[in-house]
Amino acid sequence: MLHFGDLLTEKIEKMNNPTVVGLDPRLAQIPVFIKNKAIKKYGESFEAAAEAIIEFNKGIIDAVADIVPATKPQIAFYECFGHAGIRAYEETITYAQKKEMLVIGDAKRNDIGSTAAAYAEAHLGMTDLFGKPTPVFNADAVTVTPYLGTDGIVPFTKVCGEQHKGIFILVRTSNPSSDEIQGQPVGDQLMDEYIATLVEGWGRDLIGKSGFSSVGAVVGATYPEEAKLLRNLMPNQIFLVPGFGAQGGTAEDVKPCFHKNGSGSIVNSSRGIIFAYQKAGKPEEAYAEAAREAAMKMKEELGKMFK
Amino acid sequence: MLHFGDLLTEKIEKMNNPTVVGLDPRLAQIPVFIKNKAIKKYGESFEAAAEAIIEFNKGIIDAVADIVPATKPQIAFYECFGHAGIRAYEETITYAQKKEMLVIGDAKRNDIGSTAAAYAEAHLGMTDLFGKPTPVFNADAVTVTPYLGTDGIVPFTKVCGEQHKGIFILVRTSNPSSDEIQGQPVGDQLMDEYIATLVEGWGRDLIGKSGFSSVGAVVGATYPEEAKLLRNLMPNQIFLVPGFGAQGGTAEDVKPCFHKNGSGSIVNSSRGIIFAYQKAGKPEEAYAEAAREAAMKMKEELGKMFK
Repeated sequence: MLHFGDLLTEKIEKMNNPTVVGLDPRLAQIPVFIKNKAIKKYGESFEAAAEAIIEFNKGIIDAVADIVPATKPQIAFYECFGHAGIRAYEETITYAQKKEMLVIGDAKRNDIGSTAAAYAEAHLGMTDLFGKPTPVFNADAVTVTPYLGTDGIVPFTKVCGEQHKGIFILVRTSNPSSDEIQGQPVGDQLMDEYIATLVEGWGRDLIGKSGFSSVGAVVGATYPEEAKLLRNLMPNQIFLVPGFGAQGGTAEDVKPCFHKNGSGSIVNSSRGIIFAYQKAGKPEEAYAEAAREAAMKMKEELGKMFK
Repeated sequence: MLHFGDLLTEKIEKMNNPTVVGLDPRLAQIPVFIKNKAIKKYGESFEAAAEAIIEFNKGIIDAVADIVPATKPQIAFYECFGHAGIRAYEETITYAQKKEMLVIGDAKRNDIGSTAAAYAEAHLGMTDLFGKPTPVFNADAVTVTPYLGTDGIVPFTKVCGEQHKGIFILVRTSNPSSDEIQGQPVGDQLMDEYIATLVEGWGRDLIGKSGFSSVGAVVGATYPEEAKLLRNLMPNQIFLVPGFGAQGGTAEDVKPCFHKNGSGSIVNSSRGIIFAYQKAGKPEEAYAEAAREAAMKMKEELGKMFK
């Protein structure tokens, strides 16, 4: 098994595409023909919602797996259908990995000690099931919130080291109010810069042959000036970059997230790709094809950055 | 339906007990007779783990529901058994509410915009299920992490207002490394004090007749000096206080979390109550009885504070 930072870097290079497709399957936007099929089988139930999500996601994954290295399911859009939704989350991860995509679970989990360990085991590692270590969600990486400090991170880095998995720690989020806490001055730095120094430390023992750590950072596309500073503070971190497209970030905005040689970041687009059929005014049946076209276009846009 | 802050305050006063029992059903510590019954039915599977958790929790709830106002299931210990574990989480909430306990889901969820809304709907409100608003976990309150600022909180407070639910926002956690971020100086305050002022603002429109807001705060028992300051900064917040017992916090330590009249906090104990049978050296079959005894003892200890 390969080191997560190496594996992700290798896949990005091989596909020449630093893109991750966000699988945020908002039920209201899933094509009606998919939902009707699920409702016919299960009625208007959570099971039908889960079934529709799984079919929709499989269509997207099939359409992009050969051109996009990774996918990022946002667990909130699965959790909102209860345990049936979580089953859809599990099946989505399994299917994406079968199609050789890396899976970054966007869960923003956080807690301390043995509770954080339970999350790390659930999302990345093995749960103790009556004495037998057993994988649960088994994503390749997961996003984590740093508010509780080292106690909340070490249980995740431990699993990363043992199971060759990765985490992306929230440093600077892409939303307008991220400044309220992340932009507070702490000494002569901002809070996000201070946290960047912590992240750099947390990831130091997990640096692979590529020079990148399995401990990455979430850095929003919407704060390019800040991204430049953060890039310097975290040279060995792969940045997971949200906020491109629907949230207003452009290729020019995400450029400071990359090293000068074009490595070190993976840019997320969710709605802009998976629901591209709506924006393009295409028939629902062409949703997967439209997603592939949008993914190709994003690849081209990002590719221009370093030409 | 009553306002959450009022309802919790009323229940605490009625039972004269500011205690919440944490339902952290670590499988390894659940009595063997319960696990064997579940394994006999489902084999050594996630379903068996879920079944064992449900039976264990029901025993605890039955034993304490008439003396303890609320319970706090820690979702990490359910999530680690995948969708089967989440089903156990759902059934635990439903059962506790049937027994008239308030349920605080300890999920520490956090995200922005429509993603935070999906979490708020999943945990507290109604999910749009094919156009029909449908409750999912339907807890009475949930814990939330503030790192993303207002954008990450408003979707929760919106649901609190509409559905008479509550949130507890992490301000000062009980773990040793909470100082790393929460204890950083921001201007002439520490970060947790600054966040306390945000929390006070976020909860201002949701203050009930009791004087308490449905937006509460998590304030660990292990920082009593800090708790004193936080109590002044957040007069209208109910504090959810972890760290009592197993983590070293005493009745004396939690006292600054309360107002002088003894209102305004609810103190959590998890392992110290639900696995009391182990510490007391009692037979497994007496686990529920031992939990009741430990809960009674905690009630007495806390009761002495204001005598």
